[in-house]
Amino acid sequence: MANDLFLRACRRQPVERTPVWIMRQAGRYLPEYRAVRQRADFLTMVRTPELAAEVTLQPVELIGVDAAIIFSDILVVPQAMGMRLSVEDGVGPRFHQPLRTPGDFERLRDVIPEDGLGYVLEALRLVRQELNGRVPVIGFAGAPWTLLSYMIEGTGSKSFSHAKRLLVEAPTMAHDLLARLAQIVGNYLVSQMKAGAQALQLFDSWSGALGPRDFREFALPYLSQAVQLARSGGGPVIVFCPGSNWALEEIAAETGADVVGVDWQTDPAEARRRLPLSQVALQGNLDPCWLYAEPPLIRERTHQMLDAFGERGHIANLGHGILPDTPPAHARAFVAAVQEWRR
Amino acid sequence: MANDLFLRACRRQPVERTPVWIMRQAGRYLPEYRAVRQRADFLTMVRTPELAAEVTLQPVELIGVDAAIIFSDILVVPQAMGMRLSVEDGVGPRFHQPLRTPGDFERLRDVIPEDGLGYVLEALRLVRQELNGRVPVIGFAGAPWTLLSYMIEGTGSKSFSHAKRLLVEAPTMAHDLLARLAQIVGNYLVSQMKAGAQALQLFDSWSGALGPRDFREFALPYLSQAVQLARSGGGPVIVFCPGSNWALEEIAAETGADVVGVDWQTDPAEARRRLPLSQVALQGNLDPCWLYAEPPLIRERTHQMLDAFGERGHIANLGHGILPDTPPAHARAFVAAVQEWRR
Repeated sequence: MANDLFLRACRRQPVERTPVWIMRQAGRYLPEYRAVRQRADFLTMVRTPELAAEVTLQPVELIGVDAAIIFSDILVVPQAMGMRLSVEDGVGPRFHQPLRTPGDFERLRDVIPEDGLGYVLEALRLVRQELNGRVPVIGFAGAPWTLLSYMIEGTGSKSFSHAKRLLVEAPTMAHDLLARLAQIVGNYLVSQMKAGAQALQLFDSWSGALGPRDFREFALPYLSQAVQLARSGGGPVIVFCPGSNWALEEIAAETGADVVGVDWQTDPAEARRRLPLSQVALQGNLDPCWLYAEPPLIRERTHQMLDAFGERGHIANLGHGILPDTPPAHARAFVAAVQEWRR
Repeated sequence: MANDLFLRACRRQPVERTPVWIMRQAGRYLPEYRAVRQRADFLTMVRTPELAAEVTLQPVELIGVDAAIIFSDILVVPQAMGMRLSVEDGVGPRFHQPLRTPGDFERLRDVIPEDGLGYVLEALRLVRQELNGRVPVIGFAGAPWTLLSYMIEGTGSKSFSHAKRLLVEAPTMAHDLLARLAQIVGNYLVSQMKAGAQALQLFDSWSGALGPRDFREFALPYLSQAVQLARSGGGPVIVFCPGSNWALEEIAAETGADVVGVDWQTDPAEARRRLPLSQVALQGNLDPCWLYAEPPLIRERTHQMLDAFGERGHIANLGHGILPDTPPAHARAFVAAVQEWRR
């Protein structure tokens, strides 16, 4: 492989420079992505391996990142379980019949990844082939709690009160589905490794909706199960629980992930102090809104972030997905600032 | 005063039992509130002292809380500065012309509370009179950063990217407006004390949208200025920065507030450990979603929370506003659980 900086950093091995990629790097901020999006709607892009592969490769070529991440969506898993999903402009993803009755839970199908999610695996094969060793490709999935909360809410939510209501009213139903999801997600990630992914990331995007008691009971154990299954695939595993920075130590210790994602709300020096290099690699965490700044300020803040994380066991990234109205030149300035640091 | 438990707890004085109130206690979960709301829209209720006073008193009578809080909205301050506000069902509050150009900022008026916000002061006078010493009444305002972010976004937001863009693109404009807001909010709170409020709460509802650097530069200094002005009115001041629990120590030290609010994401024992009783009183923090549980479970979790905070210097509350679909009986169960604890 021409550039394996990302994989070495995941394993806390020495690197000549810190690797960098950007969450949602294959996305709407890129005119070249929007050009593809004009020809096909979001879910068609996700389900068409050639289109998914095309936009997956764009940021490698246009922004110069050190890793690709397969273009997909965390909600393809509940969709494969039988839930009807749509993604509309301005509305975002939506399940038309969110889970509300015990019958809704029982009707959910199990998922054989090669079957129900074969299009993602095919996209990974294409990407791996077309990258031809230039940079590694990352596979990903949503963590069980995040999937469950979407499946119950139907869409994003401020309070996640439908999903959290289930946790107090019918905890056994919640645990049953979370256990199923951990198994399905874990198997799906192993299949992604077999199809060509060289590392995996689990997104527990709504972990911040849970306080300590609920997080420890309903999120962390199932995230850990999924990580453990995923790690059996051999590649390094990254976990990201935005909005739950109080739990960094527990996330690292319980999941046994190779890399812990750090959100933009967390001070990088504090993250490194709480999770020492001897224990785990870290990924993050520039505030996506700081990419609105002019390139000299982006450069200054990126270098300060890199100083705080240190040279080893760090993968530079934003602390959340890149915003759709970010100028591509500013994304390039971020990537360049990482790649020139201390050289 | 018949029941001054709340005021004594704010000052960390001995109390016979822990006082309790509920954020948004005068709200949609109460059928008696909805009956008033049928006769007048939200902003008419806010601007009509008799209606505001009526719903302010409802939870004292119906739920048995140990403090009233004036029924109002944090956005009345920008409205008094000249911004056009509407509050529609299902949409929430919205400014029709959010601040976008330097001209928008310059057109903002200063506020003389007795003039532009006289209706809130009149409502406080009515409430104080009708309470007749049964329980104290709390006044409140939004903190400068939270007001600025609403004024720029126009409405609630997931990323607050318009407001945060200003912080990197035009920090001087942001600082100028934040300084004005700190002054206006501080004066407004002092006026509320003169009109009858016996304690004050500052809500920095969107502080969680800021990472450490931005929080320290754009939120905390102006929150502190507003607290210092407000404290000159003589009453205890509560600050609440939900989603910023990483900053609890700084919030207590910098603002000098009498009471620090604790959100539901924070472990109460940890909050008490980080902010010792010798320094500050704490308020919070049951997860509002836990009020969906049956009363015995509410009671159990409330007692665990009270055990963790301890008997002195604690005001029981939720860790966020009560949700509109909470059964009133469950709100009563929470209040009763506090009032019976260790008795």
